[in-house]
Amino acid sequence: MATKRPLAIVFDTFGTVVDWRSSLIAELSSFGTKRGIDADWTRLVDAWRAAYQPSMDRVRQGEVQWTNLDELHRGSLDRLVAEFGIAGLTESDLQHLNRGWHRLRPWPDAVPGLRRLKRSYIIGPLSNGNVALLTNMAKHADIPWDMVFGADLFERYKPDPATYLGVARLLDLPPAEVMMAAAHNGDLANARKCGLMTAFFPRPQEYGPHQRRDYAADQQWDVIANDIEDLAAQLGC
Amino acid sequence: MATKRPLAIVFDTFGTVVDWRSSLIAELSSFGTKRGIDADWTRLVDAWRAAYQPSMDRVRQGEVQWTNLDELHRGSLDRLVAEFGIAGLTESDLQHLNRGWHRLRPWPDAVPGLRRLKRSYIIGPLSNGNVALLTNMAKHADIPWDMVFGADLFERYKPDPATYLGVARLLDLPPAEVMMAAAHNGDLANARKCGLMTAFFPRPQEYGPHQRRDYAADQQWDVIANDIEDLAAQLGC
Repeated sequence: MATKRPLAIVFDTFGTVVDWRSSLIAELSSFGTKRGIDADWTRLVDAWRAAYQPSMDRVRQGEVQWTNLDELHRGSLDRLVAEFGIAGLTESDLQHLNRGWHRLRPWPDAVPGLRRLKRSYIIGPLSNGNVALLTNMAKHADIPWDMVFGADLFERYKPDPATYLGVARLLDLPPAEVMMAAAHNGDLANARKCGLMTAFFPRPQEYGPHQRRDYAADQQWDVIANDIEDLAAQLGC
Repeated sequence: MATKRPLAIVFDTFGTVVDWRSSLIAELSSFGTKRGIDADWTRLVDAWRAAYQPSMDRVRQGEVQWTNLDELHRGSLDRLVAEFGIAGLTESDLQHLNRGWHRLRPWPDAVPGLRRLKRSYIIGPLSNGNVALLTNMAKHADIPWDMVFGADLFERYKPDPATYLGVARLLDLPPAEVMMAAAHNGDLANARKCGLMTAFFPRPQEYGPHQRRDYAADQQWDVIANDIEDLAAQLGC
C-alpha cells in the first residue's frame, strides 16, 4: 500500500491504457474483408509496431527534424504496404488505416479505473503519441483525461527528460508530486531518474505471443498494481 | 442557425466560461473577514484585472521574456497589496490569494452547456491562462475539457496568431474546422483573421458596473448565442 500520494498521475498509453495490438488486428482484418484485400494483417500490425522505436530513434538522434507519431506511423505503413505487396489501397484508405491508432480500444479496467482516479487526481496521458492522436483516442474510447500530454508539446520523445519534467513544469508541480504509471519497467526507470513517483501494472497480453518482458515489476516501484482499477484502490479511490 | 459545423470548439475562459469578478470578490472578502484584514476588496479585484492586459503587454512587446499568467498575476498582486496599504499578509497568504484564479466559478450555463457540446465536439479552453491554472480550475469547477490549451503551450499570449493556429496544429485540423467561442468581440475578430470559425455570446455582468462593451455581437459571427447552453442547442447538441 502506497503511503505518499501524488497530485497528478500520467499514463503511458500504447499498451498501458489501450490494447493497440488486438484493436489494430481487428480493424485491419475487417477492412481487408470488406475490401476483398487478402493479407497477413496480424503480421503487418506486429511489423508496424516493430517499426515504432526505430522510427522515433531517427528523431531522437537528430537524423530528421521533429516528426510527430502520426507522420512516423504513416511512413512505416507506406513502407510495409509495399513490402507486404498489398495493392489497391487509395490515399484515403491509407489515411483511414493510419488513423486506426486514434481508435484503439482501452483495456477493460482502464476507463473505470481512470474515472475513479479522476475524482482525486489530475490524470493525463504522457505518451509518444501526438495531441491529436491522443485526443481523438480519448473521444473515441471515452477516456476521461484532464489534460493531454502529447510528445509534440515538448517536441521530444520519451525517454527524453524534457517529457517527464515537462509535465511537472506545465502542471507547476514538483516532479515528486507527479506519478508516472506504465506497464513498461523501462519507462518507469526513466521517470524515476527525473524524480517522478512510479506505478507499475502488467499487461501480459500487450504483444500477444511475442511478449518477452514486463510480466512483472523489476524494481520496487512506488505502487505495484494488477491493473488501473487496482491502482485506483491502492491510491484510495 | 449555423449550417457548417466545426470539429473542435475552444473557449476563451476568463469572463466567457468563468465569472472571475464575483468569484474573486467573494473569495478575497471572505479571506479578509476571517483574517480580520479590512480593505476594499472589490476595488482590489477590479484593479487586479485592470493590470491583466498591461502585464501581458510587457511580454507581448518583448520587454520581459515569457512569463506565465500565474506569475504575472502574482507580480500585480504584490504591487497592489502595497498600493492599497494592506498589511499582515504572509507569503503563504499571497500564494493562496493568487491561486484564487484557479478556483473561479463557472457561469451557471457553462458546465451543462459544455457537457452537451462534449458529446459531439472536441472542447478545450484557449486562454491566456497557463495549463496549471486552467487544469486546476477545471478540476475545481468540474469543467469537462478534452484538452487544455494554455498560453504556455505556445509561449505567446492571444491575440498572437500562434495561439489560434497552435490549436489547429496540435489537433491536426484546418483552422476552418476549429471554432473560437468567446464573450469578447475582439478575441473573435483575431481568431477569424486566422481562419477559425467564431461563436459569440454575451456576458453583460462580467465587469459588474464597469462593463463598457461586448453587450452584443459587433460582427456577423458564425454563431451568435445567448450562452453556452444556447450554443450547444444551435450546434445540434
